[in-house]
Parts: sequence; C-alpha cells; structure tokens
Amino acid sequence: MILTVTLNAALDITYRVPQLRPHTTHRVTDVAERPGGKGLNVARVLAALGHDTVVTGFAGGVTGTVLREGLAALTGGGTGTGPRRARIIDALVPIAGTTRRTIGVVDGSTGDTTQLNEPGPLVTTPEWTDFLAGYARLLREAAAVALCGSLPPGVPVGTYAQLIREAHAAGVPTLLDTSGEPLRRGIAARPHMVKPNAAELAALTGATDPLRAARDARRRGARAVAASLGGDGMLAVTSQGTWRARPPLRLSGNPTGAGDSAVAGLLSGLVEEVPWPDRLARAVALSAAAVRAPVAGEFDRADYDELLGRVEVTEHPAAV
Amino acid sequence: MILTVTLNAALDITYRVPQLRPHTTHRVTDVAERPGGKGLNVARVLAALGHDTVVTGFAGGVTGTVLREGLAALTGGGTGTGPRRARIIDALVPIAGTTRRTIGVVDGSTGDTTQLNEPGPLVTTPEWTDFLAGYARLLREAAAVALCGSLPPGVPVGTYAQLIREAHAAGVPTLLDTSGEPLRRGIAARPHMVKPNAAELAALTGATDPLRAARDARRRGARAVAASLGGDGMLAVTSQGTWRARPPLRLSGNPTGAGDSAVAGLLSGLVEEVPWPDRLARAVALSAAAVRAPVAGEFDRADYDELLGRVEVTEHPAAV
Repeated sequence: MILTVTLNAALDITYRVPQLRPHTTHRVTDVAERPGGKGLNVARVLAALGHDTVVTGFAGGVTGTVLREGLAALTGGGTGTGPRRARIIDALVPIAGTTRRTIGVVDGSTGDTTQLNEPGPLVTTPEWTDFLAGYARLLREAAAVALCGSLPPGVPVGTYAQLIREAHAAGVPTLLDTSGEPLRRGIAARPHMVKPNAAELAALTGATDPLRAARDARRRGARAVAASLGGDGMLAVTSQGTWRARPPLRLSGNPTGAGDSAVAGLLSGLVEEVPWPDRLARAVALSAAAVRAPVAGEFDRADYDELLGRVEVTEHPAAV
Repeated sequence: MILTVTLNAALDITYRVPQLRPHTTHRVTDVAERPGGKGLNVARVLAALGHDTVVTGFAGGVTGTVLREGLAALTGGGTGTGPRRARIIDALVPIAGTTRRTIGVVDGSTGDTTQLNEPGPLVTTPEWTDFLAGYARLLREAAAVALCGSLPPGVPVGTYAQLIREAHAAGVPTLLDTSGEPLRRGIAARPHMVKPNAAELAALTGATDPLRAARDARRRGARAVAASLGGDGMLAVTSQGTWRARPPLRLSGNPTGAGDSAVAGLLSGLVEEVPWPDRLARAVALSAAAVRAPVAGEFDRADYDELLGRVEVTEHPAAV
C-alpha cells in the first residue's frame, strides 16, 4: 500500500455565491463538504488509480468526526467502471483539538475561488508521540510515502525532515509536497521527490527560472524535483535526466486539487516503477483532468485516459 | 418568561483575516464560534437584562449539536456584576437536517465584515407539526414573543402570520423582526410591534422616507413600528405617539447584533410596561453598546448604563 501523511487535515467546504462582493452579505446558494488536506486528496486519486492507500495525520472535534465519516463513505462508493476503486484506510490519530475547516467561496460570475483556511488545532506532545509510533508501524507495510501540506501549530518545523529520515531507515521512498521552512528543512533530509510549484521553488532557491531553481533544489538534497508550472505542465530534474511535460491544450476550470492529482500520478508511477517520462505524463494528465472536472478534486476516468495519450513529454538536452 | 422564535438558527462563525482580497487564499488568524440567529441573539441580551428567556425554533446535525452546547454554556456563565444573568432555556426542536452556518469574515485592515450565510436545512412536515405543538405550549407561559429572522426551506411564507394569530389567541404580545414577503404577510396579522430597518421598510412600502414608510406599515396592520435608522437611532410610530431617539454620538464599530439588541430593548420595555420613549432609549442604548463592543453581539453593562442616560428622545409633533 501507499501511505499519505496529512498533519493538517481539513474539512473542505465549498460555497457558491452569485457574485462575491467584499463587505456585503451573501446568501450561499450551494454548500458542499468533503474530507480535505493534501494527503487525503492524494489518497482519493490513488484509490481511483487502483492503489490501496493508508492516510495518517490527525483528526479531532466535530469537524474531525465529519471528516472521518466522509472518508469512510469514499471507500464504500465507486461506479464499477474502470479499474477497481481501491481502499482508503483511515489511520488518522485522534486529538483533543478540532480539525480545521477550509472554505472555498466560488464566485458564480467569474468562476474564481476565494479561499479561507483556518489555522488548525494545536497538537500536544502525547498526540505527536502517538502519531510517530503509528507512522513507524505503517512504514513497514508502505511501498511509498507522501508527506503533504502545512504543519499544524505545535508540530516542530523540522518534522518532515524527521519523517523522511525514518522512511529512509525503513527503506521506503518519500515524496514531499510542502512549502516554506518545512520544505527547506525537509529537502535537506534527501527525499526521493519534491513537487513544488514555481512560486514555492522560487521562494526556496531565490531563482525565478524553474530549471535553474529545480537544479538548485536538487543540490540542496532532493533526489528528484518535479516542478508544477500551472497550465504549462511540469518540469522534472532527476538523476536520470531532465524532462518537460505539456498538457495537450490550455485548460480552463478549477485548479483546486490539480497539484494533489499530480502527486498521485508521480507516486503511482514510482510504485509501479514506470520511467520518468511516463510518471510525468500521468501527473500532467491527472492535473488536467482535475482542472476540467466540475467538482474540485475529482476527475473523469475517460477524460484522464484521453489526455494521457496526448501529453507531450520532451527530454531536455542540457546536462544536469 | 419571554419567548423568542428562531426558525433559521445558525452557528455563527467569525473569521479574522489581515486583509480580504477576492480570488486569493487567506490564512485565517482567528476563529470564533457561537450560537446565532436573530432570536438567539435577542435571548442573550434579554438574559443579560435579567429576563428569563425560552428559545425555540429548529436545531439539527453536528452544527445543531455545537449550537446547543454553546447555548447551554451561555447560561452557566455570568460575571456576578450587574443584575442577575437570567436563564436561557433551550426549547429548540430537533430536526433531521443540519443547522446552517454563517461566516463573517472580518477584514483586519478596514474592520469591515463580509458575510456568507448558508441557506438552512429543509424542515419536514412532521418537524413543523412538532414545532407548532411546542409553540402553543410555550405561549401559555410567555409574557411576550419575538419572531425573528428568515424562514428555512420548507416553512411556508405565511408562517409568521400564523404564529402571530396563535399568540393573539393566547393573549401574548408579539414583536416581528423579519424582511421581504414573510414581513409583508406577518404585518397583515397585526403584530404589536415590528422592527424593520429603513431598507426593509422601503422594500415593504415603496416609500423611502422612514416616517412615511412607518405610517404606511401601520396602515398595513402593525400596531407599532419601531424603525432602526442605523447610526441615526430609531423612529417609533405607535398609537400613543411618534418619537425619534438618537444615540449621543456617531458610533464606529461592528454593527452585527445591533438590530437584535434593539429588539431585546423593545421587548424588555414592553414586558416591564415602560412608556415608549423609555423603550426606544433602551433599544438605542443597547444597539450603541453592541456596536462599541469588541465582540459582535456582546455589550458592556457599564457602557449601556452610561449611553442610556444620554440617548435623546423627542416626540414628533405631527398627528399619526
């Protein structure tokens, strides 16, 4: 199975309003709720690709309960077409604090989303110890681990570095998808892959050119860098070569979840030991399918299959 | 005791962000939650004024549970200064649907609030029947009843008219605080008081001059109209006379809850049988104290007492 870690899981709430006008009152016309946080989103896509996935991290309070119920309901579903929808196994650690909410306000007049993210609950030292014990157990069964998203209050900033070192010791490859100081510290622990976007790479390295920045990130410790370039696809700088992957067309839609879909593509490719160009093609096709899906973070299987055949992957001639 | 009816109760959530910028992502720096909906806010102020209050309406789902827990916690508190903090008694009817949330996003750079209100749960016919049976029982003990706020889906638009007629039959005076078609229909059932703001009055009557509009509202059936004029205070048109009440100074602060505080002032004055000028002074002083309070819907007792002595009430010379 694949393990995903979401230390700051969230109940994702989407509101639709006819038009967002600051400092006025809005009647919300449509409300949707689902389990969220990057690692949970990654797990959903991995399950759709046929990979059993265990999710860990923290959940607590009434929003934590709603999140876990939503997670349990996910595995029960599945339409029966395409590959078997694999299981998502809930290994979240209960905490006394309350799982945060994120609110995405979709403006019906433009389709744009305004995001409001709560800070997340305080994690106590005994809760953190519980998590670490569970993480060590779960690593024994894991084919790969994804470490995703921001850190909640009370969790040390060097946490991802620690979790990467433990995965190394257990022989489990790691993918890190975070930003800021947790990314900087995590990279130094030599994860197998990082998946920053261009802005995160620039913040990390000071270089605005993605190729230059990705090479810098490798020098800092990442064994491979798969940088997402938004609608322009991805750039991978690895020990085996450097590639650019481009979607077949400029896409419009909701970019929420596109990055998490890319992580699922990269991770499934790693576990199935497909070559880098194919991993990138998966990641870009899944991102594109997510952008085109009417519901944030979902994707249409047929759309993905069709896009997959049309992603253009080119090798970069320069030496790394 | 005083009865307040809140058919569309809400869990009020307040988010603070450094600056609200549409179509970007915000980290919420502060989250506060409390039981909300107009009738619950009125009850909180009535309790602070020393009146035992029963709240009814509907509550369901996880947000309903959180709301009721918050309500129970309110009565337990109290600082021991000023008059006894009276009880708030929970007579909300359980429903299968989930109580709505409202989100107020406070922009730290301007202090302005952007409001996002969920539509509210569907109320089924058996749930509505349960409510009506409870309402009839509660009327027997009530000194007055306030009917507050919007109607949830599934509740007929003529509902307030029906509830007012039942209160008449039980000999209980009524205050109606709603807008749109529920206000129009409710007024026709001859409530003792309505408390529209200038915009609601204009929408009801077509007249933009508040005095003219308030007189029109009386002709439509309201026995007394106490119109809130925002920072300019209130105007009351009654069978005993017409009065203007003005706060002692232009106030700045958070207007959330000012209208509900005014309803509590009017209702406590009605029950204590104080003359109209004193009712208006209470309403305006409570509104002003609410605007000045750091937390939406709260007020400082000393601030209220000081403001109360400085509200200017003048009788309007014209015949009604």
